[in-house]
Amino acid sequence: MSHERTVIRGGLVITAADEVHADVLVEGERVVALAATGSPAAQAWEAERVIDATDCYVIPGGVDAHTHMELPFGGTAASDTFETGTRAAAVGGTTTIVDFAVQSVGHSLREGLDAWHAKAQGRCAIDYGFHMIMSDVTEHVLKEMDVLVEEGVTSFKLFMAYPGVFYSDDGRILRAMQRSAANGGLIMMHAENGIAIDVLVEQALAAGHTDPRYHGEVRRELLEAEATHRAIQLARVAGAPLYVVHVSCEQAVNELAQARDLGLNVFGETCPQYLFLSTDNLAEPDFEGAKYVCSTPLRPKEHQAVLWRALRTNDLSVVSTDHCPFCFVGQKELGRGDFSKIPNGLPGVENRMDLLHQAVLDGHISRRRWIELACATPARMFGLYPRKGTIAPGSDADIVIFDPHERYVMSAATHHMNVDYSAYEGRQMTGRARTVLSRGTPVVDAGRYVGHAGHGTFLPRSTSQYLI
Amino acid sequence: MSHERTVIRGGLVITAADEVHADVLVEGERVVALAATGSPAAQAWEAERVIDATDCYVIPGGVDAHTHMELPFGGTAASDTFETGTRAAAVGGTTTIVDFAVQSVGHSLREGLDAWHAKAQGRCAIDYGFHMIMSDVTEHVLKEMDVLVEEGVTSFKLFMAYPGVFYSDDGRILRAMQRSAANGGLIMMHAENGIAIDVLVEQALAAGHTDPRYHGEVRRELLEAEATHRAIQLARVAGAPLYVVHVSCEQAVNELAQARDLGLNVFGETCPQYLFLSTDNLAEPDFEGAKYVCSTPLRPKEHQAVLWRALRTNDLSVVSTDHCPFCFVGQKELGRGDFSKIPNGLPGVENRMDLLHQAVLDGHISRRRWIELACATPARMFGLYPRKGTIAPGSDADIVIFDPHERYVMSAATHHMNVDYSAYEGRQMTGRARTVLSRGTPVVDAGRYVGHAGHGTFLPRSTSQYLI
Amino acid sequence: MSHERTVIRGGLVITAADEVHADVLVEGERVVALAATGSPAAQAWEAERVIDATDCYVIPGGVDAHTHMELPFGGTAASDTFETGTRAAAVGGTTTIVDFAVQSVGHSLREGLDAWHAKAQGRCAIDYGFHMIMSDVTEHVLKEMDVLVEEGVTSFKLFMAYPGVFYSDDGRILRAMQRSAANGGLIMMHAENGIAIDVLVEQALAAGHTDPRYHGEVRRELLEAEATHRAIQLARVAGAPLYVVHVSCEQAVNELAQARDLGLNVFGETCPQYLFLSTDNLAEPDFEGAKYVCSTPLRPKEHQAVLWRALRTNDLSVVSTDHCPFCFVGQKELGRGDFSKIPNGLPGVENRMDLLHQAVLDGHISRRRWIELACATPARMFGLYPRKGTIAPGSDADIVIFDPHERYVMSAATHHMNVDYSAYEGRQMTGRARTVLSRGTPVVDAGRYVGHAGHGTFLPRSTSQYLI
Amino acid sequence: MSHERTVIRGGLVITAADEVHADVLVEGERVVALAATGSPAAQAWEAERVIDATDCYVIPGGVDAHTHMELPFGGTAASDTFETGTRAAAVGGTTTIVDFAVQSVGHSLREGLDAWHAKAQGRCAIDYGFHMIMSDVTEHVLKEMDVLVEEGVTSFKLFMAYPGVFYSDDGRILRAMQRSAANGGLIMMHAENGIAIDVLVEQALAAGHTDPRYHGEVRRELLEAEATHRAIQLARVAGAPLYVVHVSCEQAVNELAQARDLGLNVFGETCPQYLFLSTDNLAEPDFEGAKYVCSTPLRPKEHQAVLWRALRTNDLSVVSTDHCPFCFVGQKELGRGDFSKIPNGLPGVENRMDLLHQAVLDGHISRRRWIELACATPARMFGLYPRKGTIAPGSDADIVIFDPHERYVMSAATHHMNVDYSAYEGRQMTGRARTVLSRGTPVVDAGRYVGHAGHGTFLPRSTSQYLI
Repeated sequence: MSHERTVIRGGLVITAADEVHADVLVEGERVVALAATGSPAAQAWEAERVIDATDCYVIPGGVDAHTHMELPFGGTAASDTFETGTRAAAVGGTTTIVDFAVQSVGHSLREGLDAWHAKAQGRCAIDYGFHMIMSDVTEHVLKEMDVLVEEGVTSFKLFMAYPGVFYSDDGRILRAMQRSAANGGLIMMHAENGIAIDVLVEQALAAGHTDPRYHGEVRRELLEAEATHRAIQLARVAGAPLYVVHVSCEQAVNELAQARDLGLNVFGETCPQYLFLSTDNLAEPDFEGAKYVCSTPLRPKEHQAVLWRALRTNDLSVVSTDHCPFCFVGQKELGRGDFSKIPNGLPGVENRMDLLHQAVLDGHISRRRWIELACATPARMFGLYPRKGTIAPGSDADIVIFDPHERYVMSAATHHMNVDYSAYEGRQMTGRARTVLSRGTPVVDAGRYVGHAGHGTFLPRSTSQYLI
Repeated sequence: MSHERTVIRGGLVITAADEVHADVLVEGERVVALAATGSPAAQAWEAERVIDATDCYVIPGGVDAHTHMELPFGGTAASDTFETGTRAAAVGGTTTIVDFAVQSVGHSLREGLDAWHAKAQGRCAIDYGFHMIMSDVTEHVLKEMDVLVEEGVTSFKLFMAYPGVFYSDDGRILRAMQRSAANGGLIMMHAENGIAIDVLVEQALAAGHTDPRYHGEVRRELLEAEATHRAIQLARVAGAPLYVVHVSCEQAVNELAQARDLGLNVFGETCPQYLFLSTDNLAEPDFEGAKYVCSTPLRPKEHQAVLWRALRTNDLSVVSTDHCPFCFVGQKELGRGDFSKIPNGLPGVENRMDLLHQAVLDGHISRRRWIELACATPARMFGLYPRKGTIAPGSDADIVIFDPHERYVMSAATHHMNVDYSAYEGRQMTGRARTVLSRGTPVVDAGRYVGHAGHGTFLPRSTSQYLI
Repeated sequence: MSHERTVIRGGLVITAADEVHADVLVEGERVVALAATGSPAAQAWEAERVIDATDCYVIPGGVDAHTHMELPFGGTAASDTFETGTRAAAVGGTTTIVDFAVQSVGHSLREGLDAWHAKAQGRCAIDYGFHMIMSDVTEHVLKEMDVLVEEGVTSFKLFMAYPGVFYSDDGRILRAMQRSAANGGLIMMHAENGIAIDVLVEQALAAGHTDPRYHGEVRRELLEAEATHRAIQLARVAGAPLYVVHVSCEQAVNELAQARDLGLNVFGETCPQYLFLSTDNLAEPDFEGAKYVCSTPLRPKEHQAVLWRALRTNDLSVVSTDHCPFCFVGQKELGRGDFSKIPNGLPGVENRMDLLHQAVLDGHISRRRWIELACATPARMFGLYPRKGTIAPGSDADIVIFDPHERYVMSAATHHMNVDYSAYEGRQMTGRARTVLSRGTPVVDAGRYVGHAGHGTFLPRSTSQYLI
Repeated sequence: MSHERTVIRGGLVITAADEVHADVLVEGERVVALAATGSPAAQAWEAERVIDATDCYVIPGGVDAHTHMELPFGGTAASDTFETGTRAAAVGGTTTIVDFAVQSVGHSLREGLDAWHAKAQGRCAIDYGFHMIMSDVTEHVLKEMDVLVEEGVTSFKLFMAYPGVFYSDDGRILRAMQRSAANGGLIMMHAENGIAIDVLVEQALAAGHTDPRYHGEVRRELLEAEATHRAIQLARVAGAPLYVVHVSCEQAVNELAQARDLGLNVFGETCPQYLFLSTDNLAEPDFEGAKYVCSTPLRPKEHQAVLWRALRTNDLSVVSTDHCPFCFVGQKELGRGDFSKIPNGLPGVENRMDLLHQAVLDGHISRRRWIELACATPARMFGLYPRKGTIAPGSDADIVIFDPHERYVMSAATHHMNVDYSAYEGRQMTGRARTVLSRGTPVVDAGRYVGHAGHGTFLPRSTSQYLI
């Protein structure tokens, strides 16, 4: 391991807790010291590399706890590989992803995890971990959970949607929750009542309602809220914590708020698409709405204010992307004439940090909360803290020099994700990563990717740090 | 200002956000740097004073946002002066207090503030600020509020209890809230329906119910909850934030939780006495219950679990002491035969940090939450952060070397507060401040007070940092 | 007492519980029998008077539990006397009113009650009772409450609004509630935080906001909800039941719903003006808005749906009128240039039964619920059941033959109330009282008033029948 | 049809709405008139049969909307036939039952309904109707629902419990609800998460927890509440009303209360066993607990107060029995060594009216509420009103002369149900049916059954009268 020293001078270091004018000293892959800018202690530092961060923020690299690189779905696969996706993440100021390895029905967790290790290894620009999607909860699989926790795959995703694919019934969910209560794992839940939704899908198609906007209509808010409530009650029965992914609507937020008022270990995540996009996008003509098809679906605009409020009240604790891109041409088009055949997912891993900074400028959240939602809490939630998610002596030197004044326009023409459209095409942005270090090594410089595939390493994770 | 350097080596630095093994470099009154213990950067530091913190926690000095030194009350005065009270605070690991200057009816805020400055100046062992108690909200007083905010007295306490003394009616409360909405001040509320309580007091005394325990019975939980709800609604009408002091019971917590679910800027404080004591203490025989008479009163034991839960869910955000000691002999005794004449208040400024550490050991809260509740949040709430409440480059060097293993017994025989009893007499404790720095200067060494009156300086405060 | 017999044939008898095709036999002042129309039992009846009710409803006479005839207010007095007001009531299908006797500050309840007896005696077209407004709750007055309950004045109204006039502080409210808990009386509450409202009134006027619509703006919904919550908590402390008058908004309904979910004896009343009118009326130009000034004030239209829902869920149990008319010319005009000088009140005693029938046609409530809200529940609530509020053997023969098909237009040109405008001018109505019996005597025939002043007698009331 | 006349003299006639001292005239099968006792109108009546009801209540015959005569379950069948069960009902003052016809998996509704008609026809002592249990919701079955509604089978029960037997998944439930929204039917729901419960059952048995009390432990309250919430949300999606059967616990009541506060057409039923028995009974030694095994299960005693409160607040609207008796010897014993094999069900059809009268004496409910819960509301809910559930001109002469003073002891030794134990063995009762008329014919006289099998006729029902 290199012991090269880097010093970042003159920036405003922002963590979830503090904003300090400090220089940061990096030695090899770790942060070793912070010192007040201009102090003798800081001035004494000598380093091979000096980065000038004057007028910039110095923030922890983003932790995106919800991505799906190369995910097979609906007869095709997400268009970003681990190589292209992590590269785009780096450029967007994210230095850690936690992606989802998938168990197929009839196969073991191990097989799925091995397959995903094979996809990722040697290809990533930044560090990565895995959650495990469980599609087939058997006695054997329950035992495998314990082993995975030991190996650092400490979170397990279950689906109340997608019957016949990822769906688990309440009995399987309960068993998995009981196991996680015992082994320290964290259950992540896709909370939609897929059984009921499939009835509405069938009825919509039978009625000739085939356009993308019907995707939003059939996946009713009440059915997301119902599943959220059910998952919470099952978690209470199991004595297990629960993390609900991609919360999209007021009714589901209310269920989380109620549970959290009771002091339950229940946590909610939302994604930029629910904060910045709406059913107006799903209704765009000429099948353009297909670009915005994801599940849970986009909701009417009035839900956005509720989600922002929940991010402030901590009823929602994490903003991840659920990055799962499919090209409009050839992939999204599979669903022309039948919205249920549109692959579900949106690109976003490159955009998250900047969109949330926009929210700071818009007054939705404070700067510290930005870092908390995007870096610190996901790192703590998934057992990566304080290695990831903060800037402190001993932490990994995953650091972003963020220029809060730079202006640019989001566009597929310039983004690094391997997908032929941007969900935020034409949006004026203020603030962007200038330099990005991953474990002390620059992977982005002056906004240009300078890293290489394989720099990123697998991160075995400890158990969630919210469960005391 | 001295530029003497101190380095604290080998401890676990705990802030609201992080736990890191780091050495801390202090230069003069400020923290200038943190570096990973054992790193070349840390080893390079030279200092006049080296403190060995091996096996200890290195934590920010406590911030006690609610004390009443020398407060005149019920024909007597709180027994701790600023000198004795701040000395005790220092020994207990608290390096900042925010005390209450009092406006008397018919007088200006200025007169009250000047009087309190006179009491405190040159006498304090640690730094101090002032909130302003408003007893007489007139047009003139509303204008004075703006001036005080400019001077760094940025929070104002109102009483819904104590008619004829501190009490403000809802119209005065509304006017003061409107003013604070405009000038950035924060209204602190003693939320009990004093008008209704006084009826119950009169009826209890008429019925011969004169013992201390009736103090707890007449100050009904519903009447604390009612006032809390009313204060919240008035704050909504005014568009102002609100901080409710010494929340004691489940019903009041529920009002706060509801308000916070709505995303309102409403905050709650509780105190160690509500977490560790109960009506069982008020019912102690031989008038011993008088030692535990304070308002809001102690509640039945079952409320404690609710308060702990609220501290975890952040429905309560701060733990202060409401330190307001009266000696049993000669002071509490004024109320023999008439509980309403017992001076209201308990000693505690010396005990808070240790009691909350006990709560860590008991599993109620995490170590980081301990620091957040006792140091970081009160500092942010009252405009002192990051100068106080954290350990970061640029912060004041208010630092406690806390030995988490030291065992001792709380007792009036050994405490430093100027009061003839301890509310926690005989309680076995684990963990205690060993060394305390106030702005870089040791004021406690090996558990002994080594500071001097007048070291502490007045802290002009900015406005609350929770109001974005 | 006459033993004249009347038989009402062929109508649909509707009570709160039943809808039956039955003939009704009246003997003297009482209902003695019901028999299935066309049955031998019915056919056997012979009577001096036969009323054909074919195609009509036969319903209990309306019970309006909230009227203010001749009420002195703001330097003038309500324009309907007991003679004109009860005549209008009769024409509108109401056969019982419960009006409010008023205690003046510094005087006894007895003096107020005597004064109101003097106003009413020998002048009423229909039966009447009194609630007692308490403006000055002293020890003497508390004792008088017991006597009044014995005399059949079993309900007592308090005001949290109108400081300096009717206002009682929370201590007086608590004492009165405690007394009612002991003597079986029912406290009725005008729930608005008048102390806070007066601040907003003063500020509005100072800002030049003098038009009637500002009356609605300063009397904030949150301040009605706050007072409602406070009244409920005080009632809980006292262990007393509570009846909240003229509930106008969603937030206050929510407080009632919460209390009722707890099983508390808390009841809510609303009035037709909150169901059919809105702030749009208050904003009518040329000072026309003054016609709609009442307190609690009219609210934005969206509250209407919540009130209808609450009437269905029984979170609101009674619809009264709060009839308190002031002529536009000479009375409402007192407030030109200062909305706070507009006498508060609306005419409506003649319109209630018809407006609620309209609600049946509009699908808001069922026919049985119409009778329950307008007849049965107010009778039970105020100790008049089953003498009033139903049609059953033994009940007073207060009966309305209601033609559900008759169409007419509401107008000041044709109404019987002594006021120069109608709050519902021009409204198309379907359904109207054709014949009205008061204790067996026709007072309205073919829509024309045929009664006489002095027919109506004072009704001593038992205590509320909802308090088991 | 006979035109024999009966007059019931001198009793207190109690309906859901009124208590009147009246004589009741019956002609043939119907009530034709009520007249004030002692009035000339009453005295004029002549009749073949005169029943003296002095000092007694004259109440509508009970309507038990939830019975399971001869139900096949767990390899055996409920021990009361329609003959023995309806005879016991009559003796207990119940004159109408609505039993459940059962569709078997793979069969049509028609087949199930025909089978149940065959069981009941010619055997019942009192009138009866049918709900339809749907075990297999197919497209064909959905169409059959419409036909059944036309035939007077207007309510349909679904199970979220009992996977593999009666269980419907959420998609089937949604489809059935959608259909009922269109055809006016009412969905009745057994709300327990059977999929999750079965996991806990399996785990309990594997752990050697085989005693009856584990039946109560595995069927967790949270899993009843969860299913209740889910059913409500599905009903909202479908736009359909919902009736939740046998609500047993506080958490489920809370879900109902929330839904009802929203004004939804959601109704709850509880049963005497949840009001009078508890897990203490399930824990009786020597396998005696098996007598109390039913689903939903008995709950800890503290739930009783919540259920009583909900009966007062109308969050629960109906008390039925869920009468489903299995003899201890030979039937309950099937579950020795495996609680999951104990047939689920309790006897009670004979006890309901008396137990609820006991609740009147105990102060839980008023007399009118007793009749409302046990007679009027079930009749309205299931489309039988005003034919059943009240005493009014035109109603069926289903009348109970109830002696409120008679004392007796409940016991299997004396009851009429065909089961070898009483769930209330030894309970001292006050109040009992003395005489019972079914459609004008005495079926119980002086407490003795005097009716005959086949007197009772099938009742085609209209749709629920709560859905306006």
